[in-house]
Amino acid sequence: MNNIRTDLALENTEHISESGQELTGVEITTEEDDNLGITVTWVKITDEIGSTAMGKPIGNYITIESATMKESDTEAHEEIIKILARKLGKLHDLKPEAVVLIIGLGNWQVTPDALGPKVCDKILVTRHLGDATPLDLQGRVRAVSALTPGVMGLTGIETAEIVKGVAEKIQPDLIIAIDALAARRTSRINATIQISDAGINPGSGLGNKRVAINQDSMGIPVIGVGVPTVVDAATLVNDTMERMLGEMAEAAPDEEAFYGMLRGLDDAERYGLIKEILDPYEGNMFVTPKDVDAVVGRLANIIASGFNIALHPGITQEDVNRYLN
Amino acid sequence: MNNIRTDLALENTEHISESGQELTGVEITTEEDDNLGITVTWVKITDEIGSTAMGKPIGNYITIESATMKESDTEAHEEIIKILARKLGKLHDLKPEAVVLIIGLGNWQVTPDALGPKVCDKILVTRHLGDATPLDLQGRVRAVSALTPGVMGLTGIETAEIVKGVAEKIQPDLIIAIDALAARRTSRINATIQISDAGINPGSGLGNKRVAINQDSMGIPVIGVGVPTVVDAATLVNDTMERMLGEMAEAAPDEEAFYGMLRGLDDAERYGLIKEILDPYEGNMFVTPKDVDAVVGRLANIIASGFNIALHPGITQEDVNRYLN
Amino acid sequence: MNNIRTDLALENTEHISESGQELTGVEITTEEDDNLGITVTWVKITDEIGSTAMGKPIGNYITIESATMKESDTEAHEEIIKILARKLGKLHDLKPEAVVLIIGLGNWQVTPDALGPKVCDKILVTRHLGDATPLDLQGRVRAVSALTPGVMGLTGIETAEIVKGVAEKIQPDLIIAIDALAARRTSRINATIQISDAGINPGSGLGNKRVAINQDSMGIPVIGVGVPTVVDAATLVNDTMERMLGEMAEAAPDEEAFYGMLRGLDDAERYGLIKEILDPYEGNMFVTPKDVDAVVGRLANIIASGFNIALHPGITQEDVNRYLN
Amino acid sequence: MNNIRTDLALENTEHISESGQELTGVEITTEEDDNLGITVTWVKITDEIGSTAMGKPIGNYITIESATMKESDTEAHEEIIKILARKLGKLHDLKPEAVVLIIGLGNWQVTPDALGPKVCDKILVTRHLGDATPLDLQGRVRAVSALTPGVMGLTGIETAEIVKGVAEKIQPDLIIAIDALAARRTSRINATIQISDAGINPGSGLGNKRVAINQDSMGIPVIGVGVPTVVDAATLVNDTMERMLGEMAEAAPDEEAFYGMLRGLDDAERYGLIKEILDPYEGNMFVTPKDVDAVVGRLANIIASGFNIALHPGITQEDVNRYLN
Repeated sequence: MNNIRTDLALENTEHISESGQELTGVEITTEEDDNLGITVTWVKITDEIGSTAMGKPIGNYITIESATMKESDTEAHEEIIKILARKLGKLHDLKPEAVVLIIGLGNWQVTPDALGPKVCDKILVTRHLGDATPLDLQGRVRAVSALTPGVMGLTGIETAEIVKGVAEKIQPDLIIAIDALAARRTSRINATIQISDAGINPGSGLGNKRVAINQDSMGIPVIGVGVPTVVDAATLVNDTMERMLGEMAEAAPDEEAFYGMLRGLDDAERYGLIKEILDPYEGNMFVTPKDVDAVVGRLANIIASGFNIALHPGITQEDVNRYLN
Repeated sequence: MNNIRTDLALENTEHISESGQELTGVEITTEEDDNLGITVTWVKITDEIGSTAMGKPIGNYITIESATMKESDTEAHEEIIKILARKLGKLHDLKPEAVVLIIGLGNWQVTPDALGPKVCDKILVTRHLGDATPLDLQGRVRAVSALTPGVMGLTGIETAEIVKGVAEKIQPDLIIAIDALAARRTSRINATIQISDAGINPGSGLGNKRVAINQDSMGIPVIGVGVPTVVDAATLVNDTMERMLGEMAEAAPDEEAFYGMLRGLDDAERYGLIKEILDPYEGNMFVTPKDVDAVVGRLANIIASGFNIALHPGITQEDVNRYLN
Repeated sequence: MNNIRTDLALENTEHISESGQELTGVEITTEEDDNLGITVTWVKITDEIGSTAMGKPIGNYITIESATMKESDTEAHEEIIKILARKLGKLHDLKPEAVVLIIGLGNWQVTPDALGPKVCDKILVTRHLGDATPLDLQGRVRAVSALTPGVMGLTGIETAEIVKGVAEKIQPDLIIAIDALAARRTSRINATIQISDAGINPGSGLGNKRVAINQDSMGIPVIGVGVPTVVDAATLVNDTMERMLGEMAEAAPDEEAFYGMLRGLDDAERYGLIKEILDPYEGNMFVTPKDVDAVVGRLANIIASGFNIALHPGITQEDVNRYLN
Repeated sequence: MNNIRTDLALENTEHISESGQELTGVEITTEEDDNLGITVTWVKITDEIGSTAMGKPIGNYITIESATMKESDTEAHEEIIKILARKLGKLHDLKPEAVVLIIGLGNWQVTPDALGPKVCDKILVTRHLGDATPLDLQGRVRAVSALTPGVMGLTGIETAEIVKGVAEKIQPDLIIAIDALAARRTSRINATIQISDAGINPGSGLGNKRVAINQDSMGIPVIGVGVPTVVDAATLVNDTMERMLGEMAEAAPDEEAFYGMLRGLDDAERYGLIKEILDPYEGNMFVTPKDVDAVVGRLANIIASGFNIALHPGITQEDVNRYLN
């Protein structure tokens, strides 16, 4: 699994099936809304074999995909918000009196990594209100708190340490952690939301988390929610080359032997060569679209709205706007 | 003590002596550098009587005052930075292997309350470096981390809960909490630094903290460092009136009886009347200078430099600039 | 007029009538919506006498007041947005093909002065779209541009120079300039919107503009829109003292002679004494509420929505949200 | 020239010589400081032939390269700052009484495009001081102003229109425009500064400027200063493939014929195929390093320091820090 970098379970399944391998220990179901252009894929890793093949822990990974996330299609957005809220409910049965801690992972100073903090900005935070809860919200909201722990390079503290320390104090029933992810295909950037009950894993996201934030490490259920805002540069090059060679082979059948040989180069070998060329001293480089600030803002709105609807069940989007604006 | 609002122990002593009271249980020593225009006052509250009179816990409160903090006097700033570092050392004996957690209290979205977060931005954070510590820093820095926990209105979590949760995880030997304060006199705004081993107390700062962050609540020594960036509006009015009446009395000796009567009005009574007039539904209002962004930035530089020098004893200001810029 | 500082024409009229003067050359009409708690006052300065008495140029000054601006009353906000759009239309007859330049005055780094820049952030900017205008907006929007010129202390350039230079290039039919203002009464802060066809005048706002931005200086109609986010400190003290003395006089009729004498002190004399006490070297100081970031954000939403509805007549609030979020 | 995207004249010369073409109408001189690891290359395009081959206007393009820009090498930084100041002087002979307008191009909300605005933040702006110039600066500074015009997508106004409008008002003798650029090689990112008297050209930078900001369009000399903070994604893939095939050919001489054929594919053809694969609907995508916020901040410091030294000849770096911090 080391020759492409992706945080999307869906892309892991694609990569495996492209390589001709059989995928056991993984169940995949798909729902399509052709009218609104939304696809929901549920990937469920059921055992260690599937986990090893996928490079991801056992658990559920639900992907909501729609190019409309990059456009101004209000109807589609509202449907996506409802789907997000419904799937959240499927992954975790939230009692009315549940206390929820939302964590916005990422470095707000790096635009493609600012998704988590931007989502937290738009969450209707209520845990502190207690008796001061406005009359028209009483009985219609849950106790929700939101924290943006920054990144280790700026705080000197592992994000997981901060989350665990705070969680031990406020004892939430559920942690929801939002993170910016890396995808394999550029077409998935800012057009995909993945939610998973496997939490946040080491090596994921832009910051390459070192310590997991999941039920094991926190002692509390953790739902990870992510949007790919970048593609890892070496993955982009490797992937594009693969597809190019495929297209050139189709267009020039005489040379197919040659291209076949080129393509047959060990994937890992070619990826390694690419990473070397891309300057081994550079550290990770990422590919992101030019209008990244606008799209990250739009996705943050969609995700925060989904959470607000899901967590505060007695209120609508209008109610939320009232208290946030 | 309820008729003026100030976080500066120094101003409490002034107010008490103005009222003619005797101050017991409080020791005050002063050092003046007339050349550079810097005054350092050490207020030490030694018993409960002093604590009750002052409205502050037993402990040490060191105030560094200099109008040069509002100007571009590099020589004076460098001296202030050194004084800050020295006094920090006087309040707490820091072992070489000590781990320090710096907390930047305050809401970065409200300019006069953004001091804490701005200081954290300029701290040389090292705790996470471990073996990756650059060669030329090794053996010359302590393990320092920095966190900005936001404010309860935005997170839904008491700042003290966040600090305690994180402290329990990373076990620092010392917590230094930076906060923006309220002063009584406008001349003290952005021209004063107070450091205290009594930590951060309920009712202090712009946010009016509800839970203390001190040795009792954290189980770890806490040094509070603050700069008054605002004056509480009702305090300003009450105070100014007091002084006006005094000046008018001096200028018109015939009316002295009258002014004397006016001034003799119970301080608390007058203050209460002022707060009513200032609109009881308004909540707290603060007075701040127009160029608050520039001055808060300058103070943040001075304080962060003081910490960097004090906590990383083997390096100079130039070294710090190298790693921060 | 120099003993109180206010940018609100409405407050000038109040001050004059309190002093017992007769107000000529000024017409005042008021509309009240008791149901929603909104008051609209139209102050029209018709000649030089009125202009001199008011300390403001000849022109129209419409004030929309409502405490609901500080609350989460969506119904009232929607009505305020509609009123704002309607009054804008009353002050300037906008042709369908008109090009509009919106200027967000103020220093975004100083929270109470950040209103202008925050409004510009939420304007549906269309001037550059041309043929690229999305199909569903075509024919329903005007050509609108938005600029935040910063402040002279940061750019070295008079704001009016920047505005004029840009206006000469893009030739708008109308300039709308948004600014944060100073009020006399704290109750008006963040609860009042003033729109005027007299533009922006020297000495106004937090930054105390030195050069006017109005039809005379720009050669193009300029509508000034402002919200008071602060009260000038000396004005606050002077005003509060005045009211206090009044209340004390009422409560103690025997001393009325005394209080009467104190109150009879020349207003300017007393104000001058206050400014001296408040530290003449300090420059202007302002009073602002603690939650200034949230309220400025809310007001920015209301004002931007009003402009978007007024300037893009074929679209609704939902349409705007679609393109901004 | 359309099969690689780079704003660096230096990289244009490399590409041309790699393709075996002869380069006429272009003069290149190089200075190396091996001790500090700094290379300065002066590319001078002298005629139309050179201009066409290079895809850049006639003029001078000085490149300062050093990997130390990405590190904490104060000695090297100080030398780079001095080189920058000297070369600025070589490109334009600045009279003592000259008025300079600095323009920070770019969208501050997109981290790799925020270089211009960040540099402007650190410029010692003096034009507005006039008689208020502090005594110790008098006679030692020039009149410098700084403006960040935003981007057309946010203002609705062509950046060049804003710059020209302001320049016509304040009549500077020189405009210096700072921009974030795209490079061909990742190793050049954040390690290169290009200054040119050909100004800013259409198609350059991250925003792909549509209108030139140069002496022709402004009527005033324009010096463009840029740092590559990104690599265009399609260029990265194409370039990496080229180099990979080269290395594979070297490693397997038997297949050289094959690789030679693959490499001989028309550069433009291959690049076109890559852009198609990279999703033609995506718009431009850029590659940037993960720590982009820190590096852009560091480069902004270096560039602003260079300008401050060059434009205010009577002051040192210490003096600048005094007034900026």
